[in-house]
Amino acid sequence: MVGRALRSSEMGQALLPKRLALPIFASDPLSSVAYATQEILVVLTLGGLAYVHFTPWIAVAVVALMTVVVLSYQQVVRAYPSGGGSYEVVSANLGESAGLVVGAALMVDYVMTVAVSVASGVDNIISAVPQLHAQRVPMALGFVALLAVVNLRGVRESGRAFAAPTYLFVSGVFIMIATGLFRYLAGDAPVAESASYGIRPQEGDAQLAGVALVLLVLRAFSNGCTALTGVEAISNGVPAFRKPKSHNAAVTLAAMGLIAVTLFVGVTTLAIVSKVHIADDACRLTGLGQDCSAYQQRTVIAQIAAAVFGGERSAGFYYVQAATALVLVLAANTAFNGFPLLSSVLAQRRYLPRQLHSRGDRLAFSNGIVALAVTAGLLLWGFEASVTALIHLYILGVFTSFTLSQTGMVRHWNQVLSTGGDPALRRRRRVARVINVVGAVFTGLVLMVVLFTKFLDGAWLAVLAAGVLWLLMRAIRGHYDRTAAELTSTDPHADLTSPSRVLAVVLVSNVHKPTLRALAYARASKPDRLEALTVAVDHEETRALEDQWQRLGIDVPLKVLDSPYREVTRPVVDHVRSLSRESPRDILGVYIPEYVVGRWWENLLHNQSALRIKARLRFTPGVLVISVPWQLISSVRADRHGARAPGSVRRGEPPR
Amino acid sequence: MVGRALRSSEMGQALLPKRLALPIFASDPLSSVAYATQEILVVLTLGGLAYVHFTPWIAVAVVALMTVVVLSYQQVVRAYPSGGGSYEVVSANLGESAGLVVGAALMVDYVMTVAVSVASGVDNIISAVPQLHAQRVPMALGFVALLAVVNLRGVRESGRAFAAPTYLFVSGVFIMIATGLFRYLAGDAPVAESASYGIRPQEGDAQLAGVALVLLVLRAFSNGCTALTGVEAISNGVPAFRKPKSHNAAVTLAAMGLIAVTLFVGVTTLAIVSKVHIADDACRLTGLGQDCSAYQQRTVIAQIAAAVFGGERSAGFYYVQAATALVLVLAANTAFNGFPLLSSVLAQRRYLPRQLHSRGDRLAFSNGIVALAVTAGLLLWGFEASVTALIHLYILGVFTSFTLSQTGMVRHWNQVLSTGGDPALRRRRRVARVINVVGAVFTGLVLMVVLFTKFLDGAWLAVLAAGVLWLLMRAIRGHYDRTAAELTSTDPHADLTSPSRVLAVVLVSNVHKPTLRALAYARASKPDRLEALTVAVDHEETRALEDQWQRLGIDVPLKVLDSPYREVTRPVVDHVRSLSRESPRDILGVYIPEYVVGRWWENLLHNQSALRIKARLRFTPGVLVISVPWQLISSVRADRHGARAPGSVRRGEPPR
Repeated sequence: MVGRALRSSEMGQALLPKRLALPIFASDPLSSVAYATQEILVVLTLGGLAYVHFTPWIAVAVVALMTVVVLSYQQVVRAYPSGGGSYEVVSANLGESAGLVVGAALMVDYVMTVAVSVASGVDNIISAVPQLHAQRVPMALGFVALLAVVNLRGVRESGRAFAAPTYLFVSGVFIMIATGLFRYLAGDAPVAESASYGIRPQEGDAQLAGVALVLLVLRAFSNGCTALTGVEAISNGVPAFRKPKSHNAAVTLAAMGLIAVTLFVGVTTLAIVSKVHIADDACRLTGLGQDCSAYQQRTVIAQIAAAVFGGERSAGFYYVQAATALVLVLAANTAFNGFPLLSSVLAQRRYLPRQLHSRGDRLAFSNGIVALAVTAGLLLWGFEASVTALIHLYILGVFTSFTLSQTGMVRHWNQVLSTGGDPALRRRRRVARVINVVGAVFTGLVLMVVLFTKFLDGAWLAVLAAGVLWLLMRAIRGHYDRTAAELTSTDPHADLTSPSRVLAVVLVSNVHKPTLRALAYARASKPDRLEALTVAVDHEETRALEDQWQRLGIDVPLKVLDSPYREVTRPVVDHVRSLSRESPRDILGVYIPEYVVGRWWENLLHNQSALRIKARLRFTPGVLVISVPWQLISSVRADRHGARAPGSVRRGEPPR
Repeated sequence: MVGRALRSSEMGQALLPKRLALPIFASDPLSSVAYATQEILVVLTLGGLAYVHFTPWIAVAVVALMTVVVLSYQQVVRAYPSGGGSYEVVSANLGESAGLVVGAALMVDYVMTVAVSVASGVDNIISAVPQLHAQRVPMALGFVALLAVVNLRGVRESGRAFAAPTYLFVSGVFIMIATGLFRYLAGDAPVAESASYGIRPQEGDAQLAGVALVLLVLRAFSNGCTALTGVEAISNGVPAFRKPKSHNAAVTLAAMGLIAVTLFVGVTTLAIVSKVHIADDACRLTGLGQDCSAYQQRTVIAQIAAAVFGGERSAGFYYVQAATALVLVLAANTAFNGFPLLSSVLAQRRYLPRQLHSRGDRLAFSNGIVALAVTAGLLLWGFEASVTALIHLYILGVFTSFTLSQTGMVRHWNQVLSTGGDPALRRRRRVARVINVVGAVFTGLVLMVVLFTKFLDGAWLAVLAAGVLWLLMRAIRGHYDRTAAELTSTDPHADLTSPSRVLAVVLVSNVHKPTLRALAYARASKPDRLEALTVAVDHEETRALEDQWQRLGIDVPLKVLDSPYREVTRPVVDHVRSLSRESPRDILGVYIPEYVVGRWWENLLHNQSALRIKARLRFTPGVLVISVPWQLISSVRADRHGARAPGSVRRGEPPR
């Protein structure tokens, strides 16, 4: 009772006020401001400087899309206060297979969140400290390793630790935007270091027109859509909000959307005003006045900060760069929290190994964390930690899940509306349905654009990975279903019938404490027949054992199995099998003394025969394997409790 | 009784006649003829062609040493008919620590046998098919992998399979020597392809004199001593001989020595006669008439065979090369057989994990085979499969074991002689002692020479590896000793006292066949108290379980543990611990239903919670973990028997 009371009081403490929920859930979407504008520019300048004038229009389209997505997800949050998330919305409304598509897409996306955020974070560090340029890939891998280790140790995702960097980042960028615009209006517009450079078009001086121009603009738009990643985090996290949960989540979502749009528009405006000229390859810049291979382009946000605050030695520049790098690494960390959540839900539906469902067990998540870190590390290594290269793989999953979940919401409203009800409520639901229809259409169109423009650039890899995951999860579910069918009892009462007799065999290698304990325990369970069993691997040792057995007057018969080839497993297994064959209706308990050790390597020195005998005996029906543990003194050190699982704060679980 | 009779009759069949024992045990020492002469020449030509005239003297010294070693080992074979081997001779006479030095040195040597033999085998293949030159390292690694796979699958080291290649090799080389000498005496001396080349000395044209000259000759002699590797195999294998075992082993040893000396002297003579000029680096050859980096020197045995049989397209040449390569790979295989034998002996004395002692279990040897293959593979890769580079690491272990075992034999005779006895016998023993004294002094001197001349060339690595192994084995023994002391029962009768009551807990997640079986078995052992235990990870599932429990009228109380954080392990472990704390004098059996699956990956999908619970419960005294296996249909495929262990023929074990 005391435990319970404490637990629910703690639960109240753990629920998040909006001011903490915002930074916890929004570090991912807000941090994408750090690279979205840049990736729009990088694509437009493929055609040469002339096409940069499309930037404002693309930004407007991204803002419009962002508005639609935020409004759509507000409907999700209200309709699924239990923290649906796209996977549950889609499974419930469009069927399990479609839900699984979302699940697979989101899993791929978590990997990309880690890779892109870390790569961009490293870019921003290098922009501030150019000497680190040669260490780009090692630094990125180092950050991934650090995140993995921190999460493997079971870090508590504390609200406060998250709040500070996110607010530092947001306020820093706001100040930068305000200062820059003020200087612009005052006639002292900031000038980026790259303002004087020209950019040679990728394919000669041919003017782009028609399809090629449309494609260029669409590709730039696809890149800009990265500003929308992470929006769905809040819809997963509704249970972690204070009451009224849905309302608070919807408000936080709106606040996040507003901040993201402001930051994105501000940074894009400043990029245009200060004439940031950035290319995918520094060697396409003209007027450099130095060797292009030695010239390292700074990130757009770094160039703006330097221009606004008076150079790359100003305090303001360092502040913005530090906050940006920090918030990007935190954004990568959200994937390490989101991944266990998603796999837990998928495991509950038996699409993933069942042990992933019981979240408290650290071991289960370790595998996920290691898999996430290794995959992200491989991508960073393979794509040389280049944001421009990695981004092609990124937003496919996001938009798959957007499109399917909005479509699912439309069906949800259709069903709800078909049941009738209060007219005012029906009106509001109709409005919600319209919003979700618009959302589904828009995000679906974007998904098509992204697929079309990026497939050959690398998106095929993301599609392939998601496809393989989808097949794997279907196969796992199929296996569980077949097993369940095999195990279903057709006649429970017959299955419950007890066997007639109980035989017991105690494995003996030595007359020491563990053996004596096993004998004592075996006798205590009063079997109908009890025998001790030893294998004569070494004849002298066996004779000594028999002598000692007799001398102590142990009243259990000692059966010695001959083993001319010094085997242990086979004679024991053969003997036990012949015993159980003699009396198939009885049960046979095999007592095996085991040492419990404290250090992992001690297991290499003990229990190996016991382990192999146990592994082989499992195949014999009617045989129970009974481990009689003997705790060596050193075992105390290994008897520790597990730590807290990652992702617990976003789920609303109290600290322990 | 039938099994026994059959077994001993088989035993007779398996014992080796001398004509099979010779090739089985001698492929290693005989095959070293393929590289010993070459490695003498390679060192001498470091000083230039002028020093090749030392070759006969070095060969004489090697032959003398070989004679001494064979005579010495004949004494070992007679004194230790149980198949002592250097390790047992040294432990018995010079103490455990010295014995362990031999053990560690021999283990390093097994690795080197694989590396050097495979490298030389590949050299001889390349000499016949020069196009394969670029594939030297991949070929070597391929052979090691092949040997590992063959031994992992549990190959039977058949006498016949070994006899053929060894006799083919011996007869081929004999014919080559006879033909060559005949042609020489007939005035038509064979001329090696390299006879016309000069060799530029390594260090300018300075004449070597004094210490430098002595060092050069000693280094060449050290290399020549590789002809002695593998002599000790017969002394390990005495039990595999037909009766009279010691006598037959001694005769085989003499035959082996005679053949090895003849081959070595013959090959060396022909190398001098046909003027084989070989250098460690082809670019030190003069008069090549082609680019030295493209010129690939053939092995000495290949050059002789080509010269004797009329060129490198003659059938005789291909025959000798094929037989040589084959016997060298077989020689490498002996290490895969010897390694398990040695580790079994060391494990019996608890210097290695105990499971290595029971030889019948294949699993235990798999680790050794993999370790041997990986280490040899790394050496071949690191030293680019160069015999000349690898050989520096080789014979240190051999001579350590020679020296220590001969010293041990001297002490053995001292002890035996101090007890008195029949004068004729005493005389023979005094002679044996003299032989062993001479053997100890000679091999000790060679050991010093080898250590001194080769330490910086790479022998330090072998010394370091043996040192680390020695420390590791001491540590393992120390651990076993401490554990044994901790487990010794001071009051066996008290330890045998049965606990007062037996409680039983059955873990339940579902009402399916495995659970029902576990309940039935738990009831059959008539505990004083029985309860079923489930964890409420998912409230709906738990409610369904409780309903079903009631509906079926199962007469065991079902206890539901609350788990607000969806953990399984912790609630169960905490509950069991509190039960056992309530009644510390009782025992508590925890019945865990387990699925037995047939494919390894199915284990990832099942039993993970059970495994973790079992692992944690082991730390609680008084708790028995009782696995109730349920055999899924697929489990049949995994229930296979193990195969035969490697090295069984040399131990005299019958086939099965």
